[in-house]
Parts: sequence; structure tokens; C-alpha cells
Amino acid sequence: MIFIQLSERQEKIIDIVKENEPITGEAIAQRLKLTRSTLRPDLAILTMSGILDARPKVGYFYTGKTAFSFVSESIRKIKVSEVKSVPIVVDEESSIYDSIVTLFLEDVSSIFVTSNGFLTGVVSRKDFLKNAIGGLDLNKTPIGVIMTRMPNIVVTKPEETILDAAMKIIDHEVDSIPVVEEVEIKDGKSEYRIIGKISKTTITRLFVELGKND
Amino acid sequence: MIFIQLSERQEKIIDIVKENEPITGEAIAQRLKLTRSTLRPDLAILTMSGILDARPKVGYFYTGKTAFSFVSESIRKIKVSEVKSVPIVVDEESSIYDSIVTLFLEDVSSIFVTSNGFLTGVVSRKDFLKNAIGGLDLNKTPIGVIMTRMPNIVVTKPEETILDAAMKIIDHEVDSIPVVEEVEIKDGKSEYRIIGKISKTTITRLFVELGKND
Repeated sequence: MIFIQLSERQEKIIDIVKENEPITGEAIAQRLKLTRSTLRPDLAILTMSGILDARPKVGYFYTGKTAFSFVSESIRKIKVSEVKSVPIVVDEESSIYDSIVTLFLEDVSSIFVTSNGFLTGVVSRKDFLKNAIGGLDLNKTPIGVIMTRMPNIVVTKPEETILDAAMKIIDHEVDSIPVVEEVEIKDGKSEYRIIGKISKTTITRLFVELGKND
Repeated sequence: MIFIQLSERQEKIIDIVKENEPITGEAIAQRLKLTRSTLRPDLAILTMSGILDARPKVGYFYTGKTAFSFVSESIRKIKVSEVKSVPIVVDEESSIYDSIVTLFLEDVSSIFVTSNGFLTGVVSRKDFLKNAIGGLDLNKTPIGVIMTRMPNIVVTKPEETILDAAMKIIDHEVDSIPVVEEVEIKDGKSEYRIIGKISKTTITRLFVELGKND
């Protein structure tokens, strides 16, 4: 896929088609006082890009397609597996206090909780703050008591697009979601193993990368 | 600006140029068993997009420009003023406890602090959590005591691009930055009035909007 900065003449052609559709290539050339063959590459570009549509024996139409279509296509192609970051995980038996220390040491906004290596919960900075001012004994209370518990956890998978993951973060109003792979344990039951994390920081960093790209 | 999905023939042309640069249009046509004039629109598209470069009497070169250039251009065009969200502000004399309540009521990750209506500080969820477990009397201590104070605050302005703002957020490892306008007070001194906020949530939401755009 490529991107093209339209020339002034191409912009003029679009305007002419917008106002006069359907209009033949010959008629466009007349208005611009140019030959039909001079316009051929311009019309090829405008139809290939989908901005104009050409129907045989009728002429050119304006489709209304805009430049932003491309951004969307690029974002949709990036997979969660390509941009996921390292998840910070504690066991369900860890104290709230120790988990907060881990949160600060790792400088993350959420911590994922496991039992026997499988995802059982998520705790955000907001959850910690709520409980820190709530009078709980942070040293004695295990994190399992305050965490958001499965199956109420939004997750993403490596093969999903980063757009899907970002939509989950926005729709569910969370700061980050775990990237998981499903592991069958027995009797057809399955659990999630945590293999990464997608956060608002991941998305913001990706946004900067895409924006800086030359 | 427009976006074009390259045809198979155009992809082939790029490959031929990559391997044989510089190569004339005539030579490319021969390899594809096509006439020079059949290739003219393809070569026009590939040079206009900047993927190929044409030098008279020498031939075509491959420039190495990629599809992502366009995403970057789009992101660079969006101004902070177009996407900023509502800032949550408390006065420097407010207690830490009241500020935490505001943080929860408004569901934001950072609070901006003012004195006489001008920006004096920023407090994040992380700052609140650190002090909540630190043994301070949250009801009696004013937020001014724990805030990050001017001039150590990263700000953005309405006319800056959203890419600039996102880079500041990533580089300074903060969740959000205030959008300010500079107000001259007297003797050439100036202060910042807070008129908005750009956060990782703003960026993630914009990312989703750009990605969903059709």
C-alpha cells in the first residue's frame, strides 16, 4: 500500500467530477484545456485510489472515499503479539502491601494475579488506592480479596489486532488487559496462561512510533 | 492525500527496480513482456508516491519509502485543540482526601492543582497511592504538600500536534499532561491557565477512532 500527495491538477479534477458527475474524461480535459492523454495518469491514480469511479460509456463519479481509510488499514494490520509488553504477575496469596510494592518497583498501572500459574484476577492502581484509604490491613490481606476475579476480566489474544485490544480497553474503561493463551487442563475445561500485556501505554507508545515513522 | 492498494503488477515493478536499479522504463517493460505505454500509469503512480525515483536518461531507483509514511502524516496533522478532554482541577488548599474523592468521582488518573486559577501542580494516582500507604493524615494534609510543583510540570498547548503531546507523555513517563495557555500577569511574568488535558486515554481513544474510520 502506498500514499500519494495529490497534485493541484488532481485536486481540480476531483472538484470537476464532484460538481458534474457523471462526466467523461474528454469533458474533464476540455475544462482544463488539456489533452485526454495528458490526463490519463491523473485519472488512473484517482480511480485506483478509489476516489473516482469510472463506468464505461458513462464517465467518472466521485466516491467520497477519504484519506483516513489508509490509517485505519495500517492500524488493523498490527497484531497484539507484535506490540505486547511484559506483564507483572503476583500470586493470589501475596499481601496487598507486597503487591503495591511490586506495582511501584515495576512502575505499572495494573497487576495480574495467578493461582497455579493461571490467570485468576486483575488489580489496578485505582483498586489499590480505594483499599489503601479504606482501612484494610494491607499487610495481612491477600490480594485475592480485592482483585477483579475471573470470568469478569477482559483479555486479548496474540492473534487479535491491536485495534481490537484498544477497543476493549476503551469500552471496558480499564488501563490494561492481559494477553493470554488458552490452555486445556482436563475434562474439556480450559484456563488462561498470561503471556503479555496491552495497556494504554502500549497504545500511546505505538501511536508515537507510527507518527514518527518517516 | 490518498491511499492506493498496489496492484500485483506494481508490486512486480517495485521488485524489478529493487534488483536492477537504475533501470529504464523500456527495460522494465521488456521484463514484463508489456509495452512501455501500458506501464506508464503504473510508473506514474510509483513515482508520485515516492516509492520509485526517476532520473532522466538514467532510469528508475527504489527509494525505500514505506506505506507507514502516510500514517505518520495523518497523526502529525491533528492538533491538541481538536482532541483535548476536560481537565479535573482542585485548589492547592484542598485536602488529599477530598482530592482522592474527586479523582474517583471523575474517574481520572491525574488531577491538576491551581492557585488563584493558575496551574501550580499535578498529582497522579501513583502519587496518591504512595502517600495513602505512607501514614500521612489525608484529611488534614493539603494536596499542595504532595503534588509535583511548577516548573517541573510537562505541559502542552492547543496549537501543538497530538504527536508532540504523546511524545511528551511517553518521554516523561506520565499518564496525562495539562493543555495550557500562557497568560501574562505583570512585569513580563506569565502563568498557565489550564484549558484541557491530554492523557493516555485521549491517545488510545483517538487510536481507536483512526482505526475504525472507513
